[in-house]
Amino acid sequence: MGNESYGKKRFKRSRSHFADRITADGRDGWPVEAGRYRLVVSLACPWAGRVLVARRLLGLESALSLGITDPIQDDRSWRFTLDPDGRDPVLGIRYLSEAYEAREKDAPGGVSVPAIVDVPSGRLVTNDFQQITLDLATEWTELHRPGAPDLYPRALRAEIDEVMEDVFQDLNNGVYRAGFATGQEEYESACRDVFRRLDALTRRLAGRRYLVGDTLTEADIRLFTTLVRFDAVYHGHFKCNRYKLSENPVLWAYARDLFQTPGFGDTVDFDHIKRHYYRVHRGINPTGVVPLGPDTDGWTTPHGRERLGGRPFGEGTPPGAP
Amino acid sequence: MGNESYGKKRFKRSRSHFADRITADGRDGWPVEAGRYRLVVSLACPWAGRVLVARRLLGLESALSLGITDPIQDDRSWRFTLDPDGRDPVLGIRYLSEAYEAREKDAPGGVSVPAIVDVPSGRLVTNDFQQITLDLATEWTELHRPGAPDLYPRALRAEIDEVMEDVFQDLNNGVYRAGFATGQEEYESACRDVFRRLDALTRRLAGRRYLVGDTLTEADIRLFTTLVRFDAVYHGHFKCNRYKLSENPVLWAYARDLFQTPGFGDTVDFDHIKRHYYRVHRGINPTGVVPLGPDTDGWTTPHGRERLGGRPFGEGTPPGAP
Repeated sequence: MGNESYGKKRFKRSRSHFADRITADGRDGWPVEAGRYRLVVSLACPWAGRVLVARRLLGLESALSLGITDPIQDDRSWRFTLDPDGRDPVLGIRYLSEAYEAREKDAPGGVSVPAIVDVPSGRLVTNDFQQITLDLATEWTELHRPGAPDLYPRALRAEIDEVMEDVFQDLNNGVYRAGFATGQEEYESACRDVFRRLDALTRRLAGRRYLVGDTLTEADIRLFTTLVRFDAVYHGHFKCNRYKLSENPVLWAYARDLFQTPGFGDTVDFDHIKRHYYRVHRGINPTGVVPLGPDTDGWTTPHGRERLGGRPFGEGTPPGAP
Repeated sequence: MGNESYGKKRFKRSRSHFADRITADGRDGWPVEAGRYRLVVSLACPWAGRVLVARRLLGLESALSLGITDPIQDDRSWRFTLDPDGRDPVLGIRYLSEAYEAREKDAPGGVSVPAIVDVPSGRLVTNDFQQITLDLATEWTELHRPGAPDLYPRALRAEIDEVMEDVFQDLNNGVYRAGFATGQEEYESACRDVFRRLDALTRRLAGRRYLVGDTLTEADIRLFTTLVRFDAVYHGHFKCNRYKLSENPVLWAYARDLFQTPGFGDTVDFDHIKRHYYRVHRGINPTGVVPLGPDTDGWTTPHGRERLGGRPFGEGTPPGAP
């Protein structure tokens, strides 16, 4: 988050400039290593939210430490104002941009989260939000907790990739295209994509518990982080308002099922989400007023999806409490 | 509508400057007379909507003719751009302000709807949105249709007035205070008023079909015109989003009951409503983009309120088709 540009021209999400990968064999110069890297997120951001969920499900909390930014950026972007003295206690920096600058002066693309920083050198390693979670699932295996699920099973990757691509275009990024549209036509096209995809997902998920196979995968994670923000910010602030998620019985039950699964709901902070979107996007909310609603009590109500079967963690087990 | 001022200071609704009354005895110089006056409304406006409903219920359509403005004002305010040549066919004017000017040059308070204009002189008579409907109910009786209901029954006026005052402060005007708030505290206070009042009305209407007595009254009309706009504009655009009307079973059934009663739903134009709010209030919606949602199919679904009894039109009958 932070790699959006909007204004007079069509909304564009830039590709991540720093696409180095942290791998088991260290081929990009960044080997998987417990305690070496720091994950920096905003709890507001759906792209960073994916990493939080994957990290929890895989039990990587102690191997990959976590810095949390203020949900409100200032003109120097993401900052550690929630920490004592306004500095990340591990990296010792006040702005995430300092890690970006340590890696490359004046890099294009801006400062975005999620970001992974190499602690010893203080340099950014990657802000590639499409790759980070896949690498946690497939490259960090040595450090996974006992009982960690396989979030990207080899036999299902083609199907997972296809589902994720549609969800990305129409939904993960579609809500932004709708919300940041500066013209009626651009908005309507994006909003129709959003709801066409929600309708298609409703059909897919009516009779099966998870998106692909019968276990939780990366595809569910990527859908979840958009759905959990839907009523709180996308419905009103981004005008994706044909209906609320809570008015779609299938998707609302699916989203609650995930929310109530250890590793999902415990990463969600509705206060950070609402304050970020409503206070930062002054171009579409000039007053910066943050709405009181919606009521979020519903998230913890019974969802009834167990009847569809499925083995959430496959041969594995749920993670413990955060 | 049009008598709101907002900006740096707290939202204020001005009192109507032209408060002459059209009465049976003509004591203000404006006697009730069939064909003499023209009602000018915007279909977007909840205050004008009251007059449309009362006029239909009382069967005053032929006695009091109707001009409808474009839902989008320009810098000279309400205009007749929907009519051939952009002129109201009866008054012959392009802007409602011309009738205001004919009455008083440079009057304070701006140009607002609903407005009643004296056709022979082209002069504005009244824009007193709090009084116009009461006078239609009690002064225009000679011109009512056979079977017209008593919308302001003498024996119940104290109770009706009390209910309407609470509904006005917290809800009719409360949604505007929330939507036009420029600060968080001002917004939250107004939004809490809105939902406290909705919650109180939910308790009141759970066991009774109408607000006062067992028939339709002016109190129901004034609540209806705000409720019918709630999900379409107040929920998102004005941030009154603790829940949608359609998520409150009691008020949603009550609102649908009225909507499906002849004289209510047939006055509602969701297109005018949405275009006005979203395109005119650039201060809170800079792009002017009008959302595709919400779906409005639900308004015509069965409401089940007949089981509460009530005699909608008392000793009278419903109006015919528009």
